[in-house]
Amino acid sequence: MEKIRILITNDDGYHSEGIIALEAALSEIGDVYVVAPASEMSGASHSLTLSRPLRIRQIDARHWTVDGTPTDCVTLAINQILPTEERPHICASGINHGPNLGDDATYSGTVAGAMEATILGVPGLAFSLVASRSHDFSESIRVAKEVMQKAIVEGLPENTLLNINVPKGVPRGIRITKQGLKDSHPMISEHIDPRGKAYYWIGEQRNGFHAEGGTDFEAIDEGYVSVTPMRADLTNYAAIDQLKNWEV
Amino acid sequence: MEKIRILITNDDGYHSEGIIALEAALSEIGDVYVVAPASEMSGASHSLTLSRPLRIRQIDARHWTVDGTPTDCVTLAINQILPTEERPHICASGINHGPNLGDDATYSGTVAGAMEATILGVPGLAFSLVASRSHDFSESIRVAKEVMQKAIVEGLPENTLLNINVPKGVPRGIRITKQGLKDSHPMISEHIDPRGKAYYWIGEQRNGFHAEGGTDFEAIDEGYVSVTPMRADLTNYAAIDQLKNWEV
Repeated sequence: MEKIRILITNDDGYHSEGIIALEAALSEIGDVYVVAPASEMSGASHSLTLSRPLRIRQIDARHWTVDGTPTDCVTLAINQILPTEERPHICASGINHGPNLGDDATYSGTVAGAMEATILGVPGLAFSLVASRSHDFSESIRVAKEVMQKAIVEGLPENTLLNINVPKGVPRGIRITKQGLKDSHPMISEHIDPRGKAYYWIGEQRNGFHAEGGTDFEAIDEGYVSVTPMRADLTNYAAIDQLKNWEV
Repeated sequence: MEKIRILITNDDGYHSEGIIALEAALSEIGDVYVVAPASEMSGASHSLTLSRPLRIRQIDARHWTVDGTPTDCVTLAINQILPTEERPHICASGINHGPNLGDDATYSGTVAGAMEATILGVPGLAFSLVASRSHDFSESIRVAKEVMQKAIVEGLPENTLLNINVPKGVPRGIRITKQGLKDSHPMISEHIDPRGKAYYWIGEQRNGFHAEGGTDFEAIDEGYVSVTPMRADLTNYAAIDQLKNWEV
């Protein structure tokens, strides 16, 4: 039987600890191909690089970097780098160093990598470790291996990617969740350069999340792995009826 | 009564024809503030610039450029550039020169500008002209004015942005739609630079769209303005039940 081919990407960049840990874990269940951004691309969302061309650097038979976003990496991997007969069966993005919970998923390059694979017909899973200080990926890689195996054996629902967040410490189990709502305020910080001109960093002050049952935040807060099924369809179906009287 | 304050952004950049047309139109219904990317940012999706600081350039009392994405522009406009007491009532993004239909909405900086406003509590509307050759924005600005006025008077459904695409020619009316599915193949083109090294452009071959009733594609195809209500919640609710047996 043919071995499972797994495409790996991320948004922290090719040299990050999270992708190295993910590759080590998934090498035990299939043939892995790593196509990742040459440098950090956090916050890249589902952006495609269209206004400039891209460079691909081959490291060895299974590793490449791209000077672009996770979405660029996935579309180049599937449509340019890997031969058609070596099309990946599944794609894993991560392991992101830090959470991708609530509306932050919409800014995430990690989630976008899995979304791009899904749009191209390759089931995609995004993995994030909810810990900004700890670099202990041991539980995350155990979870990644377990969830990837489940996805390979059972398949994913149609047009669906999974956004998986792993809590600090040893998880109490897995919960299937919906995207929650963070409680935060953007905090722009102004600095002055040596020439006296202002520049700005985008940041935020996090206060937690809106308490609501069944969200990704709640699962993580209670020590569970959060698995949120997501899709590339942004339609707010509930609002279609509300707006029907706008039709003319 | 206080005049309506309208924040305008786009992804084609501050100097594009579409944003100039949009500003002219919306100036008739409120006070407009333009905060737009200094250069073209097509395909920027909902990306936030986190790995480098941003520069803001003030042109005059109502116009600014930012060397970042549409999402950067909106968060800086609301949280840094405009005084708290001049918080915008509504945000318009566009007019994009070219369609934002189907899954392409997920790559769109135009849609993301409206999404960011919505996340920050300011109703957001994205406008696109479905014509890559024509630069005639006359019908688009008529539609933009009409739809903005409707949104100001009636409000938008909670946590909902609108993705509005205007067809070529004179529209037959307005349809409330869902995001469709494009039928296309990514086309990566390889080129060789003067030093003999390869570089790649991401593109695609478009074959049309998947026929399905009620989509944005269908409305445009039939000559109607397409108004798709969207949200920042990526959850595929239908898949939650399907995956419940994954819980442990």
